[in-house]
Amino acid sequence: MVGSPLLDDLRAALGDDAVLTDPDLLRMHQRDEADLCPAGTPLVVTRPRSTEQVVAVVRAAARHGVPVVPQGARTGLAGAANAVDGAVVLSTMAMDAIREIDPVSRIAVVQPGVVNATLAGAVAKHGLWYPPDPGSWESSTIGGNVSTNAGGMCCVKYGVTTEYVLGLEVVLASGEVLRTGRRTAKGVAGYDLTRLFVGSEGTLGVITEITVSLRPAPEESLTMVAVFGSTAAAGAAVADIAAQGLSPSLLELLDRTHLRAIEAYRPMGLRTDAQALLLAAADTGSRSADDLARLAEVCEAAGAEEVYAATDAVEAAALLQARRLAHPAMEKFAADAFPGGNGGLVIDDVAVPRGALAALLDGVARIAEECDVPIGVVGHAGDGNMHPNIVVDRADPASLERGRRAFDEIMRLGLDLGGTCTGEHGVGLLKRDWLAREIGPVGVRVHQAIKAALDPAGMLNPGKVL
Amino acid sequence: MVGSPLLDDLRAALGDDAVLTDPDLLRMHQRDEADLCPAGTPLVVTRPRSTEQVVAVVRAAARHGVPVVPQGARTGLAGAANAVDGAVVLSTMAMDAIREIDPVSRIAVVQPGVVNATLAGAVAKHGLWYPPDPGSWESSTIGGNVSTNAGGMCCVKYGVTTEYVLGLEVVLASGEVLRTGRRTAKGVAGYDLTRLFVGSEGTLGVITEITVSLRPAPEESLTMVAVFGSTAAAGAAVADIAAQGLSPSLLELLDRTHLRAIEAYRPMGLRTDAQALLLAAADTGSRSADDLARLAEVCEAAGAEEVYAATDAVEAAALLQARRLAHPAMEKFAADAFPGGNGGLVIDDVAVPRGALAALLDGVARIAEECDVPIGVVGHAGDGNMHPNIVVDRADPASLERGRRAFDEIMRLGLDLGGTCTGEHGVGLLKRDWLAREIGPVGVRVHQAIKAALDPAGMLNPGKVL
Repeated sequence: MVGSPLLDDLRAALGDDAVLTDPDLLRMHQRDEADLCPAGTPLVVTRPRSTEQVVAVVRAAARHGVPVVPQGARTGLAGAANAVDGAVVLSTMAMDAIREIDPVSRIAVVQPGVVNATLAGAVAKHGLWYPPDPGSWESSTIGGNVSTNAGGMCCVKYGVTTEYVLGLEVVLASGEVLRTGRRTAKGVAGYDLTRLFVGSEGTLGVITEITVSLRPAPEESLTMVAVFGSTAAAGAAVADIAAQGLSPSLLELLDRTHLRAIEAYRPMGLRTDAQALLLAAADTGSRSADDLARLAEVCEAAGAEEVYAATDAVEAAALLQARRLAHPAMEKFAADAFPGGNGGLVIDDVAVPRGALAALLDGVARIAEECDVPIGVVGHAGDGNMHPNIVVDRADPASLERGRRAFDEIMRLGLDLGGTCTGEHGVGLLKRDWLAREIGPVGVRVHQAIKAALDPAGMLNPGKVL
Repeated sequence: MVGSPLLDDLRAALGDDAVLTDPDLLRMHQRDEADLCPAGTPLVVTRPRSTEQVVAVVRAAARHGVPVVPQGARTGLAGAANAVDGAVVLSTMAMDAIREIDPVSRIAVVQPGVVNATLAGAVAKHGLWYPPDPGSWESSTIGGNVSTNAGGMCCVKYGVTTEYVLGLEVVLASGEVLRTGRRTAKGVAGYDLTRLFVGSEGTLGVITEITVSLRPAPEESLTMVAVFGSTAAAGAAVADIAAQGLSPSLLELLDRTHLRAIEAYRPMGLRTDAQALLLAAADTGSRSADDLARLAEVCEAAGAEEVYAATDAVEAAALLQARRLAHPAMEKFAADAFPGGNGGLVIDDVAVPRGALAALLDGVARIAEECDVPIGVVGHAGDGNMHPNIVVDRADPASLERGRRAFDEIMRLGLDLGGTCTGEHGVGLLKRDWLAREIGPVGVRVHQAIKAALDPAGMLNPGKVL
């Protein structure tokens, strides 16, 4: 067993079984799922079970001048959970208790390591709904979702994670335990510290308890597909849907590259000759059919070649499943695109005002051509939040360089269109330079001032965001 | 014309007509509508017209070591806009331009002095809706609404101001101009500075531009009234409505004191023999009648003595108008309750988890008895956010003391029930002690650290919140 004064302190506080130094385990905890991001090897992985144990980890690390990197399920896509050399990784995976579900106040109180799908299932038994549904929902944790302010497919109607976070318990760099927010539907007592911690990617504190608000169980929904001969026409349909005041509960776009990748990965009868496909749903119960018909009309008026509604819940689930497969299918497509399975995917994330979606899609196609890299586009069209996925050959430095250039061009285009460099994946290590461009020098100074106010020694998740 | 180096600087930057030193005007700008709060006399009232002029005011004040107190329409109820002696009041009322309304991206960009009702009217012409509707909506400004994170009657279904603020332009204490947030539906680029400024009551910066998100125009709604023989039964009905998964677009409570005050103020045929009245609405268009019927069923099952639906839009508007008159009617009732019109109202604001509403109402009745002061209760029952309004005789120190005691007892009860000391009116001067109790010493230290990081000299709205 590796020994050091810091490890001794950690073992004394947490017990041997929650203080891991096995080299394989350390390697496993080096990084999340982001590409293009550096990652170090931690000194130790800790798995505290309680707030008190998190305090002990943070205090011990501070005493020994060692940084702390909080981690959930490491499904992030921006490198925010990547370790730095010699750090204490603080895994929240053992803090997985659902402490309370209150159907009248419509809240739940959970530890950070609870998996999103576990919470969703638990509240469903009470006729309630926790809407945020990132692609990783079956494995990612509420703590990670809160730390990255995760999005998902429901956001177009129901908003992102931050809309559902009422209050937090946070262990600060000082080892003090801060309680933010409330259990009430409304509250304006002091600064909104809750939302300052949401999306701060573990740089301001370690979240140890989360109070979320819940909605009543969703109503029955109906799903449809619209097939377009150009991505621009699909983009125009999205703008028209917004302009007509419609509120779909789902409005996703898949381009031809993704349709083909999915069909190759798992044949589902998708129209692979289409340039783009919009997947839309209406969840207004008895009115869903009317609302879906209005969505279909707008798509047809915008030039859809074909519009069809799922005939039953099974077909609707299959369409959703196809969308959920976009990510693994595209990974497979990229791997197979180059000899030796060396192909890989640089997953980007950009959001523009809805009205600029068609321009974004056109621009990404132009960038793919100019940079000579395949780029597939998929994402949350109704929010103007797209994931251009860049296919690169990891064994070929020139291909990697072209991919990197395309990534930067897409970021630049997004900002030029009035957008943001990250709609839902976060800044982490991947987007630090682009964050600085987006928020400017005053914004950077304010970020630094807040970081310094809460973590003067810079011990929490160093190098992330800023 | 009064002269001083600071006034000279201000006049040089803003012009004489935007730098006001008339004693009557200074007196007028001493305070907002809060009771029990001290207020000083400002040195000057400035009315900048642009962000550049706000920068000039902040820089001039900083140079001369004079505090700046931002003010909107001064309709606040916590003293957050109260002047301190010798301060520069920065009124945003001349910054009243609506810069942009974009129906596709569903956003509007406004200066802070735009009146809520003006924005609501302007976006309605585009088929859009800006939901936040504080009681003061016909006179209060968006800047003030954002600074206090104002609530209103729509919140039960549509949330409070912060849910609609996408981005801000803020002049910092340093005179630098910070841009926060975005124009996109989603975005996670860096810390959520936007929501840090929302509700910070002018203590962290002066908001000079606001980007808000909008919703499609509301659907047709139907309104009903349920009459209860006890406030506890009305509270139980509210809990049942939530437990049944219903989502009324309005769920307000008026107690007998308020019903009588309104009826005396403007006879509308309200049931003044009732102990409590719930006002509810469903705004689901063609389904409103069904949804209203379900609300009525739950109220009847909870013991409502009578339930009736408004027969048409005129009657529904009259019911809403009755609710909106609660505040002025209660002011009049209080004034008339003591000789010489010396009666006054201490307006409180407390929010508890929905499930604790009945306990809150019972507790307030007990406190009224124990402290021997009349207390009427009105508010946003669906959010658990109530306004206990305490009637005092301003000419009688003993009455004032009893009122103050009742106020404190209500705050204590709210916290004991898992609630917050302010659901929507804010902290300002009125609730500083209760904020400190609610958030505890760690919370206070974090507030102070953030204040110090952004305003090290403490020149922005000193003495508020903290």
